[in-house]
Amino acid sequence: MPQNIYDDAQFFAGYSKLPRSTRGLDGAPEWPALRALLPTLHGLRVLDLGCGFGWFCRYARTAGAASVTGLDVSEQMLARAREQTNDGAISYLRADLEQQLTLAPAAFDLAYSSLALHYIENLTGLLAQVHAALVPGATFIFSVEHPIYTAPRNPGWVSDAEGGRTWPVDGYCDEGARSTDWLAKGVIKQHRTIATYFTLLRQAGFAVSHIDEWAPTQAQIAAQPELAVERERPAFLIVACCRDE
Amino acid sequence: MPQNIYDDAQFFAGYSKLPRSTRGLDGAPEWPALRALLPTLHGLRVLDLGCGFGWFCRYARTAGAASVTGLDVSEQMLARAREQTNDGAISYLRADLEQQLTLAPAAFDLAYSSLALHYIENLTGLLAQVHAALVPGATFIFSVEHPIYTAPRNPGWVSDAEGGRTWPVDGYCDEGARSTDWLAKGVIKQHRTIATYFTLLRQAGFAVSHIDEWAPTQAQIAAQPELAVERERPAFLIVACCRDE
Repeated sequence: MPQNIYDDAQFFAGYSKLPRSTRGLDGAPEWPALRALLPTLHGLRVLDLGCGFGWFCRYARTAGAASVTGLDVSEQMLARAREQTNDGAISYLRADLEQQLTLAPAAFDLAYSSLALHYIENLTGLLAQVHAALVPGATFIFSVEHPIYTAPRNPGWVSDAEGGRTWPVDGYCDEGARSTDWLAKGVIKQHRTIATYFTLLRQAGFAVSHIDEWAPTQAQIAAQPELAVERERPAFLIVACCRDE
Repeated sequence: MPQNIYDDAQFFAGYSKLPRSTRGLDGAPEWPALRALLPTLHGLRVLDLGCGFGWFCRYARTAGAASVTGLDVSEQMLARAREQTNDGAISYLRADLEQQLTLAPAAFDLAYSSLALHYIENLTGLLAQVHAALVPGATFIFSVEHPIYTAPRNPGWVSDAEGGRTWPVDGYCDEGARSTDWLAKGVIKQHRTIATYFTLLRQAGFAVSHIDEWAPTQAQIAAQPELAVERERPAFLIVACCRDE
């Protein structure tokens, strides 16, 4: 089984303290951009790939989803998600997204994934399963770490020729595993270009309808000045697509 | 009229000495990737936006295009293109791509543009005109400088935290004019994200079929070792799309 960093004690402790963990969706500055891409959830059967603490699953039910299935590899995250949920229409299932999942064909109207797919090595295999699990015309919306963010050997701000703050990009065209120290040492992510995400989606039978290289709005920066740096280089890539008919 | 840098004497002298000027398409390492996206040209009416010295126009005729119209803003480039062409089915026309063009509706089966659109401020207006000039289902293929390449204040290699070669990315999410010194001082380019290219194309009525963040192949690097650096960060973005039916 590939690395399950979320069940690493140090990582989990750090992750649990992030705003997106303590405050949920409103603690994630890219959430408004993701939400804007969602269809009306009323009556939909929703699949959440990498559901974590279940914030989106609960949101989807509040917004009228008929049922929500949240998958995650982390037992600790699922345990906390279940503690915080009292809703028979939400199912939290342990699943390694690298492996064969047990999803009924054409059982979902919407698939969603927040910051999980950049951990997946066999993305081709996962996309095929998501495609099969969705009804024709269904929407698939996901965020991943942007390739500008995942590419470099040493991801961290450096100085440009005039001493200004700049982000280092190297190895961008050489895809594959990247080991970084974020909350714990040796977190493994998969670096993929935007072109590759686009190509893999098309090959899996998805039509891309929206690409967003997310950046905070000026209103967000006014409320949280520390977000300004995120306009220098996008940290997140958000994609919306739909399963071909 | 916006900047017409190609008729600047210093710029033109420098540009004329580049391999892509002296050797034509084979002097452009991204040409094989562009060529691979082209449909069969036999019998097509081809439009080349920013035709320069006319290398692609002549190639298209060699490959069987019925007619080729090459547009460029540079009188000097068009003059040289005409000198090198003896083919009544190729028309070279002076045109500022920022302005209203005189293209008959649905008169072309293929539109092509190599490294010209990142000079265009009113890309929305140009895309609307290209859309109208193409027949439904026609292909539009273009290359531009990649936004990773156009973004930074100081575009040039810097050192990362361990002294390795890295490319500075800053201001990526803030689109607009960039002034750089390339062949001449103060060359103005328009920085746009991949997301924006994708969105503008969709809004203009094009369906994107291919995104390529171009990098040299290992075979190209073996033949030209100086190309290796181009795998660190993509310099070119290549897009293929087709006019909606």
